[in-house]
Amino acid sequence: MSRVFLDYAAITPIDPMVAKDMEKAQKFWANPSSLHREGEIAKKTLEEARIKIARILHCKAGEIFFTSGGTESLNLAILGVIKSQRASFEKPKAVFELPRSQKTAFGFLPHIITSTIEHPAVLEPIKNLLKEKKVEVSFIAPNEKGIINPESIKKEIKENTVLVIIQHANNEIGTIQPIQKIANVIKEYKENTRVALVLNYPYLLVDACQSVLYENVSLERLGADMLVFDGIKIYGPRGAGILIVKHAVGIESIIFGGGQESGLRSGTENVPAAVGLAKALEIAVEKREKESVRLIKLRDYTVAKILKEIPSSSLNGDLENRLPNNINICFSSQNFGSQGSPLKNFAPKGDPLRNFDSEFLVIKLDTLGFAVSSASACHTLSLENGSYVIESLGKKECGSSSLRITLGRDTKKSDLDLLISALKKIVK
Amino acid sequence: MSRVFLDYAAITPIDPMVAKDMEKAQKFWANPSSLHREGEIAKKTLEEARIKIARILHCKAGEIFFTSGGTESLNLAILGVIKSQRASFEKPKAVFELPRSQKTAFGFLPHIITSTIEHPAVLEPIKNLLKEKKVEVSFIAPNEKGIINPESIKKEIKENTVLVIIQHANNEIGTIQPIQKIANVIKEYKENTRVALVLNYPYLLVDACQSVLYENVSLERLGADMLVFDGIKIYGPRGAGILIVKHAVGIESIIFGGGQESGLRSGTENVPAAVGLAKALEIAVEKREKESVRLIKLRDYTVAKILKEIPSSSLNGDLENRLPNNINICFSSQNFGSQGSPLKNFAPKGDPLRNFDSEFLVIKLDTLGFAVSSASACHTLSLENGSYVIESLGKKECGSSSLRITLGRDTKKSDLDLLISALKKIVK
Repeated sequence: MSRVFLDYAAITPIDPMVAKDMEKAQKFWANPSSLHREGEIAKKTLEEARIKIARILHCKAGEIFFTSGGTESLNLAILGVIKSQRASFEKPKAVFELPRSQKTAFGFLPHIITSTIEHPAVLEPIKNLLKEKKVEVSFIAPNEKGIINPESIKKEIKENTVLVIIQHANNEIGTIQPIQKIANVIKEYKENTRVALVLNYPYLLVDACQSVLYENVSLERLGADMLVFDGIKIYGPRGAGILIVKHAVGIESIIFGGGQESGLRSGTENVPAAVGLAKALEIAVEKREKESVRLIKLRDYTVAKILKEIPSSSLNGDLENRLPNNINICFSSQNFGSQGSPLKNFAPKGDPLRNFDSEFLVIKLDTLGFAVSSASACHTLSLENGSYVIESLGKKECGSSSLRITLGRDTKKSDLDLLISALKKIVK
Repeated sequence: MSRVFLDYAAITPIDPMVAKDMEKAQKFWANPSSLHREGEIAKKTLEEARIKIARILHCKAGEIFFTSGGTESLNLAILGVIKSQRASFEKPKAVFELPRSQKTAFGFLPHIITSTIEHPAVLEPIKNLLKEKKVEVSFIAPNEKGIINPESIKKEIKENTVLVIIQHANNEIGTIQPIQKIANVIKEYKENTRVALVLNYPYLLVDACQSVLYENVSLERLGADMLVFDGIKIYGPRGAGILIVKHAVGIESIIFGGGQESGLRSGTENVPAAVGLAKALEIAVEKREKESVRLIKLRDYTVAKILKEIPSSSLNGDLENRLPNNINICFSSQNFGSQGSPLKNFAPKGDPLRNFDSEFLVIKLDTLGFAVSSASACHTLSLENGSYVIESLGKKECGSSSLRITLGRDTKKSDLDLLISALKKIVK
């Protein structure tokens, strides 16, 4: 039986051109830290990949750090910045070195602002810092459409705010956040309150894992201080990610050893992975515009058709500010509480509560030949609890009754027509 | 010009059979955490690799954790165990739950015993813990042949000793440590002092990165509680390593997120890398005996010839307890201080101090077509300081005057004859 893969938010296959470049790079297999010619060639290959990425993202090559993936990158950014800043929070003598207006920053814990719908690779390190009483955190909820209001971040910023962490696009519902506006809020705060430039935080950390394929993630354009993405989400290498840290940001290592990656990330450099990341990014940028237009058409067609033909369904998250490849549908006719549901009158007679369990839908569709997802693939420990992202939208009943359908480069209209037919059979 | 690569301790090329298995695994590119069939197949592929490794190393599959390499594995083992144990050191109520004889363990910091010649991926995380005042550490120096005396570890073990960290074989001088005897010392200590099994540390962490190719690293045989190795050192995948943690060991994560690898190591699993590690290990075991015999012959031939034909040379480290592929020679006729030098009378007339700078030798040999190494490739930040490993042997004058020549599967006798001729030309 032929299969239809519609779970591209979980992972993408390696682009054949990326695989080819990586295979070529395997010829230069020496250790880039070695002094001899073989080492030099490996080092050169690594640095060329770094420069290529820097040009695409409008940052300096020295601001790019290769890691083992998005999760490590986000952990390094969060734990590394807090570690670096905690030192200054703890040193009382630093207070005397600062202008009067900045003194109150000390005596507090470092403060983080983030949203309730971030990926576990952001929420879990933060939880860990909270458990260790090393930070205080403001969690911002999105509106019912899954969008973070920059004003709600503005309200939370204070003297000891070191990090603002917002994902560019959500991994479950695909909503795109107003990163530039959030960057402006931070910039304004700095201009108004930081008398001297002694304290240059809050830093804006943007998780761009899901957005790189469809959005321009230039650091200049976004106004981000740190940016993260992952090879597996962009038809690139596995076990490979990027953390970009602008030079002004104070950050320390979380893994220690040979001092590779300018001392920030120890461990022998993975040269083929770096080459693969550069190529995958290059291809992504090349295809971005055309592929976005194509997928938006397919996405909107599918969403409209499902909402029309399956009465108990509703879209999770905003349709307008949304990744071109993301469809997330709730199959529940339950009352949507205070938010109200546009579909609440569609509940068929004699079946007032039609809640379809996410896992049931995924497994049922799987037997019919479709690979889709219940929430995110990254909740291996907490799947049974439903989606905290969808619950954050105020749609509690949808947390365990939703399907994520994510499109990719191989997705055709006929695949989606088949899926809609299959869905109608199951949710009849 | 044809090149001779003699730096296999820094890195090894991927075995073509490993590359082939990894390419095959790329077909199962889905996310192993996904519920659908594609995810299931990826998960199955991952778990089969884990079982294969478990069988070879005589441990349980659930005790094997895939990481991004040796450095991450060692950091996770050290920082993760200390983090996990610190909680019990800090909780005063725990004291009352313990038999009387164990109470004194509390009120102290966790204690680590390690050697002065460990890899930076061990020494640097320990330095970081020291800086943060989270541990106390006993550093054991090796004897002048580079061997750690188990008795010197015995002397240092005390109630609060949580970790004993000893590398199986040194990455610079190739000396093989008496791990089984060290394991016995720890076992005896536990039997004599741990009345109940409430406290089951000290744990023995063995860095086997350099030894896997030539030694039997079965956990049972070694008596280790934790073991680390790396793909790049065993003709395997780049950016891929293993940490084995026996079930009894208390350990916590240092990177947080989706909870993969039983919650210990978050981040989407790198399935092809796991497959590649299993295959590389399988091949290593297959070739181990024959390749060791072959390389020991080549090694001993080369060492004898260099020591004989280059008067100012001496071997760093023991010849008997040594990796089959490691040659490390000091080119200095300076007096060897209190240790005395077997070659001190060889200094040629009119040239009483013949110290050849390591980097000069590496670069000179490089121009003649040979890739060798000054110390380790993993000192990117501190190369100019010479080798702390060789200085630990009491051969201070050799720290910056030594060459590491490491053999591999492609090394032939003729390569070594060419190298010896080249060396004689340089060190004339």
